[in-house]
Amino acid sequence: MSNAPSLSRLSLNQITTEQWSLEEAVQGCLRHDVPWISVWRHKIHEIGLSQSRKLINDAGLKVSSVCRGGMFPAPTPEERRERIEDNKRAIEEAAELGTDVLVLVCGPAPDKDIDSARKWVEEGIEELIPFAREYGIKLGIEPLHPMYAADRSVISTLGQANSINERMQSDHVGVVVDVFHVWWDPNLYREIERAQGSILGFHVSDWVVPLPDIFKARGMMGDGVIELRRMRQAVEAAGYHGPIEVEIINDAIWNQPGDDTLKQMKERYTDYV
Amino acid sequence: MSNAPSLSRLSLNQITTEQWSLEEAVQGCLRHDVPWISVWRHKIHEIGLSQSRKLINDAGLKVSSVCRGGMFPAPTPEERRERIEDNKRAIEEAAELGTDVLVLVCGPAPDKDIDSARKWVEEGIEELIPFAREYGIKLGIEPLHPMYAADRSVISTLGQANSINERMQSDHVGVVVDVFHVWWDPNLYREIERAQGSILGFHVSDWVVPLPDIFKARGMMGDGVIELRRMRQAVEAAGYHGPIEVEIINDAIWNQPGDDTLKQMKERYTDYV
Repeated sequence: MSNAPSLSRLSLNQITTEQWSLEEAVQGCLRHDVPWISVWRHKIHEIGLSQSRKLINDAGLKVSSVCRGGMFPAPTPEERRERIEDNKRAIEEAAELGTDVLVLVCGPAPDKDIDSARKWVEEGIEELIPFAREYGIKLGIEPLHPMYAADRSVISTLGQANSINERMQSDHVGVVVDVFHVWWDPNLYREIERAQGSILGFHVSDWVVPLPDIFKARGMMGDGVIELRRMRQAVEAAGYHGPIEVEIINDAIWNQPGDDTLKQMKERYTDYV
Repeated sequence: MSNAPSLSRLSLNQITTEQWSLEEAVQGCLRHDVPWISVWRHKIHEIGLSQSRKLINDAGLKVSSVCRGGMFPAPTPEERRERIEDNKRAIEEAAELGTDVLVLVCGPAPDKDIDSARKWVEEGIEELIPFAREYGIKLGIEPLHPMYAADRSVISTLGQANSINERMQSDHVGVVVDVFHVWWDPNLYREIERAQGSILGFHVSDWVVPLPDIFKARGMMGDGVIELRRMRQAVEAAGYHGPIEVEIINDAIWNQPGDDTLKQMKERYTDYV
């Protein structure tokens, strides 16, 4: 379709082929001419950082982001300190793999006090900025769907992420727009506009009805209700022209051959994104 | 506990004892000294409106609300007209049962066009106002959790509900605050304050981790992460001192004896709400 985004922007977020090792995912991208990959840390740790880097470099792939840093809130200062240290390792890994974006899944509250958890998220990001700058990494605050507010992230709207980003006043902080997390928001297009110049990533999947699961919930683009093209054009109007990650967490898709998934996601990307 | 709300405000939302008929629910409320009940239309229709009224009046119960009107969006003008007519029947039923509140679950979009669906919701509410006024009924716009935006309601935040309410400028429209739907919202307390004088209902349950199901998702008060007392005090500060409905949609609770549920919900109401 003439309005489709260029395939040169397509990125495989590795969680979409969770059944594959990093090596298999890299080979898959090569077979299907997918130029970008987003790498998950648990896949890096399976084979080590230098081997991960070598696989990706040898294949000539570009890394759109590393998933994920964040998880800032914890009940004690010591634990919050450990979380910061782990984020620093994530920044080092991102730099080593040649991307400039670390995606932040900010974390849930350790108790019922969601306000304190939100404060700890902000303090954590602020503390990481000098380290991120040193390594040339940008911290991408990804709001997660409010259904994950109790167990994955207390940052639930793009408006919240934009507010934190504005308070940080740093070129090394920005926001990540994932359609699955934000599509329902009545303020969505206003907040995309507000994020002008600060969008560090755009992730696509779809919201299918009924949802197959709470965590493994996402559908293939085109199978659900999300106005994908409208959102993609909105983030472009807000200055984002970087890679577009296909990030789908779904049991049925994990159980099909990864090659089928890559073939399908390319078609759907062209037809619906 | 000294900060607990008076038991004179406690209401059984009938979906909490979905296994019971209206007659069983009314008898249950009598046995457990629960002074209010919120009645669901599918339970009314099982035995008819006049029999429902007689059961409730004979027991001396007060009706906090009827659930539910709404479901405004539909693909054709004819279908939207039918939805309006059904809402008028719901208003008549609410008036007949002696409550002044009809809870609106506003409905999903029939397609991907969420903006049009939101417009139809607003047009539907506006059209109902004269009819609601005639019957002495207030229309309570209940924002539903964003996880239901695709299949139950395109009204997803209290801010959205407040904005519609403000545009309606009618004493016969207001908002309903259900903790399960709005607890995650970073603007929650600001929006409760903004709803000053317009809150028509307050519903309690809890958000448990992990969520047991997507639809049958709610937990008993105290079993989850929601700051129930803080929210109850906030709606009071915003002028709401009416009945507090316990509304829990949960398979395990539906499978236990209704008397156990009423006993437990009274205890938890006192301890946590």
